[in-house]
Amino acid sequence: MMYSNPTHSNGYHQQPQQDQHPTDRRPEMSHGQRARRGRRPGSRSRDSSRDGHDGAGSLRVSDQKNLQQQQQQQQRPPCTEFDMAYFHSYAHVGIHEEMIKDQVRTETYRQAIMQHQSSIEGKVVVDVGCGTGILSIFCAQAGAKRVYAVDASEIALQANEVVKANNLSDTVIVLHGRVEDVEIDEEVDVIISEWMGYMLLYESMLGSVIIARDRWLKPGGLILPSHATLYIAPVTHPDRYSESIDFWRNVYGIDMSAMMPLAKQCAFEEPCVETIVGENILTWPHVVKHVDCYTVTIGELESVHTKYNFKSMMRAPLHGFAFWFDVEFAGPAMSPTHSHAQPSLTETPVDGNQRKKRVNPNEALVLSTAPEDPPTHWQQTLIYFYEPIDVEQDQLIEGSVTLSQSKENARFMNIHLEYASGGRSFVKESVMR
Amino acid sequence: MMYSNPTHSNGYHQQPQQDQHPTDRRPEMSHGQRARRGRRPGSRSRDSSRDGHDGAGSLRVSDQKNLQQQQQQQQRPPCTEFDMAYFHSYAHVGIHEEMIKDQVRTETYRQAIMQHQSSIEGKVVVDVGCGTGILSIFCAQAGAKRVYAVDASEIALQANEVVKANNLSDTVIVLHGRVEDVEIDEEVDVIISEWMGYMLLYESMLGSVIIARDRWLKPGGLILPSHATLYIAPVTHPDRYSESIDFWRNVYGIDMSAMMPLAKQCAFEEPCVETIVGENILTWPHVVKHVDCYTVTIGELESVHTKYNFKSMMRAPLHGFAFWFDVEFAGPAMSPTHSHAQPSLTETPVDGNQRKKRVNPNEALVLSTAPEDPPTHWQQTLIYFYEPIDVEQDQLIEGSVTLSQSKENARFMNIHLEYASGGRSFVKESVMR
Repeated sequence: MMYSNPTHSNGYHQQPQQDQHPTDRRPEMSHGQRARRGRRPGSRSRDSSRDGHDGAGSLRVSDQKNLQQQQQQQQRPPCTEFDMAYFHSYAHVGIHEEMIKDQVRTETYRQAIMQHQSSIEGKVVVDVGCGTGILSIFCAQAGAKRVYAVDASEIALQANEVVKANNLSDTVIVLHGRVEDVEIDEEVDVIISEWMGYMLLYESMLGSVIIARDRWLKPGGLILPSHATLYIAPVTHPDRYSESIDFWRNVYGIDMSAMMPLAKQCAFEEPCVETIVGENILTWPHVVKHVDCYTVTIGELESVHTKYNFKSMMRAPLHGFAFWFDVEFAGPAMSPTHSHAQPSLTETPVDGNQRKKRVNPNEALVLSTAPEDPPTHWQQTLIYFYEPIDVEQDQLIEGSVTLSQSKENARFMNIHLEYASGGRSFVKESVMR
Repeated sequence: MMYSNPTHSNGYHQQPQQDQHPTDRRPEMSHGQRARRGRRPGSRSRDSSRDGHDGAGSLRVSDQKNLQQQQQQQQRPPCTEFDMAYFHSYAHVGIHEEMIKDQVRTETYRQAIMQHQSSIEGKVVVDVGCGTGILSIFCAQAGAKRVYAVDASEIALQANEVVKANNLSDTVIVLHGRVEDVEIDEEVDVIISEWMGYMLLYESMLGSVIIARDRWLKPGGLILPSHATLYIAPVTHPDRYSESIDFWRNVYGIDMSAMMPLAKQCAFEEPCVETIVGENILTWPHVVKHVDCYTVTIGELESVHTKYNFKSMMRAPLHGFAFWFDVEFAGPAMSPTHSHAQPSLTETPVDGNQRKKRVNPNEALVLSTAPEDPPTHWQQTLIYFYEPIDVEQDQLIEGSVTLSQSKENARFMNIHLEYASGGRSFVKESVMR
């Protein structure tokens, strides 16, 4: 038997590796192998008292904050219990360790900061959701005059310790609070933020960047990243289906296919975060949403709807759809390098690795989470069907996708997927919680 | 940014594999790589209504059950909310898929059933915590006259479907309820159960086997497994410590060692379930608890205390202690093959692989989760210190360990560890939740 408490555990559960696990043929596909990320209630608050921190008061939050907060409370979005749980999930070190160790992510941000050094040197920067403060310190290293490092999670207390230990307290000012609530008494030249969630929009953290932009960014200021694009593509993945579903047909010689209906539901009811490869993709992706961080509004993100029209490049069972995203680090005067208005069927394929690191310094750096690019901690997000659909080469797959914030919790995402092929049409609803 | 809702998510999060992850040097050590097992609230109940099951009423629970329950309620342990959450965690298919795919576990049980076929053929068996019913079907295949497959989780409904689909309904009788509550109107010859949790005793499921034994087992009946032993040994694991703690000394050139106190707390406050190897162990293990399933009492399991006395076989940093267990499948007349009363310092080393599969059919089969044996889904359970202790070859490491059921939730386990070496002594308290 095996059991982990669903709500309270914060023990470390290492995954057995394939080479240590000769008896388990494909451990990477096992259902038990799920990441627990941002699941560490309580740890930080205990540490906070142990280390003698005295909370946000030790940080440079303006003394007038409480008064101003009261005055402005009615204009600001309320901080819900879901928001509190969200901020608290970032108090644990493990989530930051994993993000920092994602070298595609962290190195691309560092390169982007260096590429835009001329816009950062001697300027004022705000880092929205600073975490441990690493991007703020990169900006300080790039010569920023002042960096406001803002985070509502208690990890901000740690960022402050890191800044002090690096003698950067004169440059990096850590503010422990929401961007809606903290006070910065000057305009800023640059906003930097690593706000992207699974499927780009999960977490709804882009809203905080928009608030920071509208509160503090100078006209003509720089936002890094500047643009973001969410893609969808049809997927074939026979191994994954077989591993979770067909497995039950013959279990140590026993026909346990009576398990299959429940196995399908358990495996495929909700979105799956997993790594696929280019070979799983049936055709070029369709752009679900292109975001210009200079102009995007909060209202625009509440619901995103698009119609797609794929033509399968091969005969294969269609198992579902994959979502992934990329972000670009363009200056305000630089237009994004791809035209995202093209319909997907005519979109020109571009090699992902070539896109990621450009030689021409005038071209925007791209951080890609596409299946054909090096894996990141975001992996890809998959919506699987309960039953695969056999498609022929050149067969059309048409439909639409609607992503909307959950009414239950604005940080959850409802995914409404309609798809039709070969004369049959389907609807799949799922929630990313 | 990355975020998974701590209480509600049941999406599938696949771990990136090392070979797919060229930028991440040791992904197997990442903090984000934790298993989520038994964390699927809600799925089964929705499926239950969809599939037209009408719950336990469709199973062969005696009609008199409710009446009898009322009559006997005061004699039986109450079913707490924690118990309900525990049972519900086994309703999701993924946890059963992972256990069944642990071939060391499932094949050893199958071999044990075959080895004891003469005690099973034509006899009455009860399978405590039957899950999907696979062990019950193995017993039916071994010729059992009747198998009562008992599980309080809704997975029992699935077991019933599997049994029906295999035309075994005349032999395997699925009872959806606790062993305390279901009625079996005859004595049984054999009890089989896969009850072992992490560190053997986590989950406290052995109590259900004891209840089944005391309610139904004939004198001289067979219990599989018959004996269980929990071990402790001192561990050195420099890579693990370095990966989680020393990592912060140089993060992309930045000294983030201010993160280290919190990193230690987050990484090592609670027990870690992970796979180590024989080379991590500093000396022969000490027996924390030996359980004879024929005679063990529930009171005996409420608190387990032992003193240990290790002599390190090498000079190394001591990072903590590892726990693992093995179980034996001996008949009631067979005595366990090791004398577990020996003090650890004089215990004779036995090669784990040789122990696991015996050639002599009179010797008991052993299912081992030791670091030197093939990995299982139980892995090992590690208690790490916040600071390593340097020990010399032959240096003594003395202390005691007390495992007790949490007052908060009897399925949680408090671990009180005292250790002394080189004139310094320490205490570490942790809770396996």
